[in-house]
Amino acid sequence: MRVALVMGGGDAPGLNAVLRAFVKRAVGQLGWDVLGVEHSFQGLFPERFAVRPLTPLSCQGLLGRGGTILGTTNRGDPFAFPMPDGSTQDRGGELADAVRRLRLDGLVVVGGDGTQRMAHRLMTGHGVPVIGVPKTIDNDLGATDLTFGFRTAVDVATEALDRLHTTAASHDRVMFLEVMGRDAGHIALESGIAGGADVILLPELPYSPERVASKIHKRRALGRTFSIVVVAEGAVPRALAEGSLRERRARIDAGGGAAAIAREVLSPLVQAEMRFVVLGHLQRGGSPSPFDRILATRFGVGAVDLAAAGRWGELVCLRQGRIEGVPLGDAVQGPRLVDPSGELVATARAVGIELGA
Amino acid sequence: MRVALVMGGGDAPGLNAVLRAFVKRAVGQLGWDVLGVEHSFQGLFPERFAVRPLTPLSCQGLLGRGGTILGTTNRGDPFAFPMPDGSTQDRGGELADAVRRLRLDGLVVVGGDGTQRMAHRLMTGHGVPVIGVPKTIDNDLGATDLTFGFRTAVDVATEALDRLHTTAASHDRVMFLEVMGRDAGHIALESGIAGGADVILLPELPYSPERVASKIHKRRALGRTFSIVVVAEGAVPRALAEGSLRERRARIDAGGGAAAIAREVLSPLVQAEMRFVVLGHLQRGGSPSPFDRILATRFGVGAVDLAAAGRWGELVCLRQGRIEGVPLGDAVQGPRLVDPSGELVATARAVGIELGA
Amino acid sequence: MRVALVMGGGDAPGLNAVLRAFVKRAVGQLGWDVLGVEHSFQGLFPERFAVRPLTPLSCQGLLGRGGTILGTTNRGDPFAFPMPDGSTQDRGGELADAVRRLRLDGLVVVGGDGTQRMAHRLMTGHGVPVIGVPKTIDNDLGATDLTFGFRTAVDVATEALDRLHTTAASHDRVMFLEVMGRDAGHIALESGIAGGADVILLPELPYSPERVASKIHKRRALGRTFSIVVVAEGAVPRALAEGSLRERRARIDAGGGAAAIAREVLSPLVQAEMRFVVLGHLQRGGSPSPFDRILATRFGVGAVDLAAAGRWGELVCLRQGRIEGVPLGDAVQGPRLVDPSGELVATARAVGIELGA
Amino acid sequence: MRVALVMGGGDAPGLNAVLRAFVKRAVGQLGWDVLGVEHSFQGLFPERFAVRPLTPLSCQGLLGRGGTILGTTNRGDPFAFPMPDGSTQDRGGELADAVRRLRLDGLVVVGGDGTQRMAHRLMTGHGVPVIGVPKTIDNDLGATDLTFGFRTAVDVATEALDRLHTTAASHDRVMFLEVMGRDAGHIALESGIAGGADVILLPELPYSPERVASKIHKRRALGRTFSIVVVAEGAVPRALAEGSLRERRARIDAGGGAAAIAREVLSPLVQAEMRFVVLGHLQRGGSPSPFDRILATRFGVGAVDLAAAGRWGELVCLRQGRIEGVPLGDAVQGPRLVDPSGELVATARAVGIELGA
Repeated sequence: MRVALVMGGGDAPGLNAVLRAFVKRAVGQLGWDVLGVEHSFQGLFPERFAVRPLTPLSCQGLLGRGGTILGTTNRGDPFAFPMPDGSTQDRGGELADAVRRLRLDGLVVVGGDGTQRMAHRLMTGHGVPVIGVPKTIDNDLGATDLTFGFRTAVDVATEALDRLHTTAASHDRVMFLEVMGRDAGHIALESGIAGGADVILLPELPYSPERVASKIHKRRALGRTFSIVVVAEGAVPRALAEGSLRERRARIDAGGGAAAIAREVLSPLVQAEMRFVVLGHLQRGGSPSPFDRILATRFGVGAVDLAAAGRWGELVCLRQGRIEGVPLGDAVQGPRLVDPSGELVATARAVGIELGA
Repeated sequence: MRVALVMGGGDAPGLNAVLRAFVKRAVGQLGWDVLGVEHSFQGLFPERFAVRPLTPLSCQGLLGRGGTILGTTNRGDPFAFPMPDGSTQDRGGELADAVRRLRLDGLVVVGGDGTQRMAHRLMTGHGVPVIGVPKTIDNDLGATDLTFGFRTAVDVATEALDRLHTTAASHDRVMFLEVMGRDAGHIALESGIAGGADVILLPELPYSPERVASKIHKRRALGRTFSIVVVAEGAVPRALAEGSLRERRARIDAGGGAAAIAREVLSPLVQAEMRFVVLGHLQRGGSPSPFDRILATRFGVGAVDLAAAGRWGELVCLRQGRIEGVPLGDAVQGPRLVDPSGELVATARAVGIELGA
Repeated sequence: MRVALVMGGGDAPGLNAVLRAFVKRAVGQLGWDVLGVEHSFQGLFPERFAVRPLTPLSCQGLLGRGGTILGTTNRGDPFAFPMPDGSTQDRGGELADAVRRLRLDGLVVVGGDGTQRMAHRLMTGHGVPVIGVPKTIDNDLGATDLTFGFRTAVDVATEALDRLHTTAASHDRVMFLEVMGRDAGHIALESGIAGGADVILLPELPYSPERVASKIHKRRALGRTFSIVVVAEGAVPRALAEGSLRERRARIDAGGGAAAIAREVLSPLVQAEMRFVVLGHLQRGGSPSPFDRILATRFGVGAVDLAAAGRWGELVCLRQGRIEGVPLGDAVQGPRLVDPSGELVATARAVGIELGA
Repeated sequence: MRVALVMGGGDAPGLNAVLRAFVKRAVGQLGWDVLGVEHSFQGLFPERFAVRPLTPLSCQGLLGRGGTILGTTNRGDPFAFPMPDGSTQDRGGELADAVRRLRLDGLVVVGGDGTQRMAHRLMTGHGVPVIGVPKTIDNDLGATDLTFGFRTAVDVATEALDRLHTTAASHDRVMFLEVMGRDAGHIALESGIAGGADVILLPELPYSPERVASKIHKRRALGRTFSIVVVAEGAVPRALAEGSLRERRARIDAGGGAAAIAREVLSPLVQAEMRFVVLGHLQRGGSPSPFDRILATRFGVGAVDLAAAGRWGELVCLRQGRIEGVPLGDAVQGPRLVDPSGELVATARAVGIELGA
């Protein structure tokens, strides 16, 4: 067997651990040839060709290392690739050619929604056997209960909340922490519960500034002169929530981000010093947590198992605690959002966290 | 409603978070009276009576704090209580009296296997309404998929492995790390995978010293002059595995612990400097990880929900991702062990980890 | 002896550790009365009077806790206090009255430059005996070689750099991390060296965007397609460096902060994806590092020693590794800046870090 | 210029950072040839010859990585090398030959007391130009105020104390933590202060078990039913303190280590559950703290500066905050012990820590 690994999209702690597990199993135990493609799909294009063999030796020390040794720079969708003259070109055929020239049995593609869609198209449109490994720091892929990198991001956000807490408490402030989550608020919800937030604002629940302000006032009345607000990137007040997701995103960008908007709409309602911190890329990098190292290792081994079983066209996923495969076509559908009537939201409310809705 | 919280057994990160969630929900939102009993069940005995009201204010800052503000010192089974004259006495009736005198609707008992058995007996034998919240750092309670504190222990053990790794690699050593797990090897298995161990020794899989030595030799032959061995407290070589668990434990204690035994039986087979570290209590204390804070919070809220629904006699548990209640009688049965033919064991083997069996 | 503790200004990890050490020594061993004043000097004003006795018991668990149990909210300079009608009023006499009414032998004032100036004025203008304990996260107080909180801030910034590193390296980016330091670049310089930055921009060394761009290009030429730039809050390109510090600050604020300006001036010179993260309050809060706990403890004990020796009017400081006292009047002069010709700057250059000047 | 780096002795966080800084400066900026010798001096012997060129590229990612890429395994003193027949042989001449054959201008030797003594002898006895870089996790080298790795060890020990604290406090226990320090108690003293220990036992201050027990009893009388005792590896009760250091060490080894002895002698005096944890190798490995990364970088650059200035025969050291060089002959004399009448010991006592003497 001869396969190549491709990694697409943004960084997530655990990418190297997937690669390491895949190579240890496939090369070290099964004797396959495994190639690593650099720069996502673009490493297969002639002008940027970058493919190298991966061996257990090249994986030493990778388990706990963040980032990916393959690099994932994405200068464009291969199916609508931006050309120097400003036009776009479908270069899917070139990818398929490269796969044939390299005599590969298939590609293993680690990536998010967008990358998996490309993988699916490569298979259905060009006959390239593909296995997918899901990757999204936001944990919003419908097909899998959990993705690696997510828990590490929650850890980073919770540690930030712990830090902000002491300052807020000592200095009578309303502190906003903006965390990742454009469409799904999983990071905000989990880190908010773990970090003892007073308010959590989620994309799934457009908020009433009045309700939020009322929570802050009630705390003041009890002598707690500070509050901590966790804001997902995609959280908006009700007044801005109408229309499509795309329109909403444009409004958030125009407003300087979700935390800036929250501060803005709360200012007239709350008399307090307000500060905000945007965690940004701090959530994406660094060493994966033990949990994510294990999950990434399971995904890497799972991908080998699928390939060994000839189950091309499937995506590795975690369901009810088990590693399984689901058809890629089914996988790249709707996102997994926070369930507003689910147990975790109820838990947040049960410990007094205001969700603003 | 008027209930009291009792915490029994050893320390586990998240005890305070359970208490905080319970109080925030029950007192802060439902208006119940909640009392905290100190020193486990003994705080209900007249000679050491220590019961105090718990309020949301008394829970400030507790979410991330290790240990428990109630204390859990256990100077003996209340149903076979050691008396000064050396005899033992069944003082269950006194507990029931105290519950009546305090006009409690019931007790919420956070504790491990042993503590839950006492809770069950208090209910069945003395008619005291009880709700259980499971607690075991080893994660070996059959009734629940996961207990709080376990993931924090895995984090601590993995961090220790990361530290040992650099020294072992630079200094050509075989390093043994003994982690908790008398009967169940979950901590050893998960931290071993996450920490890149070369060998993991589990109570569930009595090991062949020859197989372990062979793994170390194979690594040497590949130029890797060091190895990392994770040893669960209850892991034994095959020669010592016969007989009952109790006999096995006695042998381990006599041998100075599982890591000492592993070093002993490997010494004749492996020519290398060997060192061992026993993590011990470092795995029990300290701030719970974000994951454990959330799980403990869910358990605390779940206990309120069970009490509110009149479901006395049940144990809060996590099953397939959901918080549920199961009858205490069912819960205090067999332990949840590592499944030798399960996916996680297969994953360990797939990345080249030797389990010695 | 009867003294009161006052804490002013922003948060810094170690404030509680100073308080704890002071109380353990003064109350626990010497039998003094120690009061804690809340809300900085304002807790001595009648309308917000908040003074409470501090005992060793009230200090339990404080050594590692961030923030301060006294709170430090500062709603204005007591010597130019903002009145409801918009005017300001010198209320220094009221402070002195409160000190007399409380029958205090003196005040121990923990705070930065501004707070120490007020303390000095209280002593020289109103005869209130005062001992100062320096506090600045930026470590820019001329009188002391080191202040508590600084090393914790460097730790936080370095950890952030570690995280950004893996993402930058995997994804071909120029990453800017803005850290504290309006006037002095100590945090930027130390975290930059410790975090393996490629470029460090300091307030003390206005930078040439061309030099910075050239460094990034040289790295590219060597195949390192990413760069990490640490930017102190007060760092500016040469073109914006003229005039007074105040004018410079105004320019930085107008430009959206130092990192935003750096990105702006580099954009025309560097073709690369650029991202920035502003650490902000994450550097101020949280548990002090072991180093800062020790230093804060030494400062707290040192303040007791000065008071016991009747050395009012002095500031505790660390000089050449020793705790000493210096006259407050000497202490509140020029700041301690990074020495552009010092060994640490030379070290940064020696390992290839570009300072842009 | 052409030099080789040799690293001897045990692991210490920062070894790789020294190497990286040396190579970045010497190779990257000054254009020297730098070789790395593996396995300490033994990599220069013909039967284990292992020397390779070091370049800035080979140093990527090393700043924060523990251990050393060179390995430091020491199978014997080259001046009294253990031969297969049981005799020892002075092989210093072979080292000098290797240095000549490699056409080296000199060796840069990173190591502790023993290693520096060998380096000194190589220079004085065989004319090999040598520069030393001090390394001891215990921070007990007389020539330098501080060594890299020490602060990281204090961080690890303090974190362990934080963990033990919560368990001890919740469960009424006397907890012993044994930390490194055979001759010097710096790690015990600093981690003990930073971790809020109740008792610290140092090699420099043989302790009275009665005094220690009295402290634990006094705490009990105040309602604090637990105590934390930090024990340096070389701490002994007075009864075992007589005679030479060597005799004392033999007694400690015979007693199972300093913590075991402390528990033993305290058992008859204190009625409490006692537990102990031996940190061991956890203090030696892992990523260096930001402080140690900076110090190691300064040492590495300092070694280049000495070599460039032709100051062979000197040891890099930190004195009063400055990197300097001192003659190796002066450096390898008496150790730097904790000063029993110094400020840090006084600080420990001032916050109520019992030192037992």
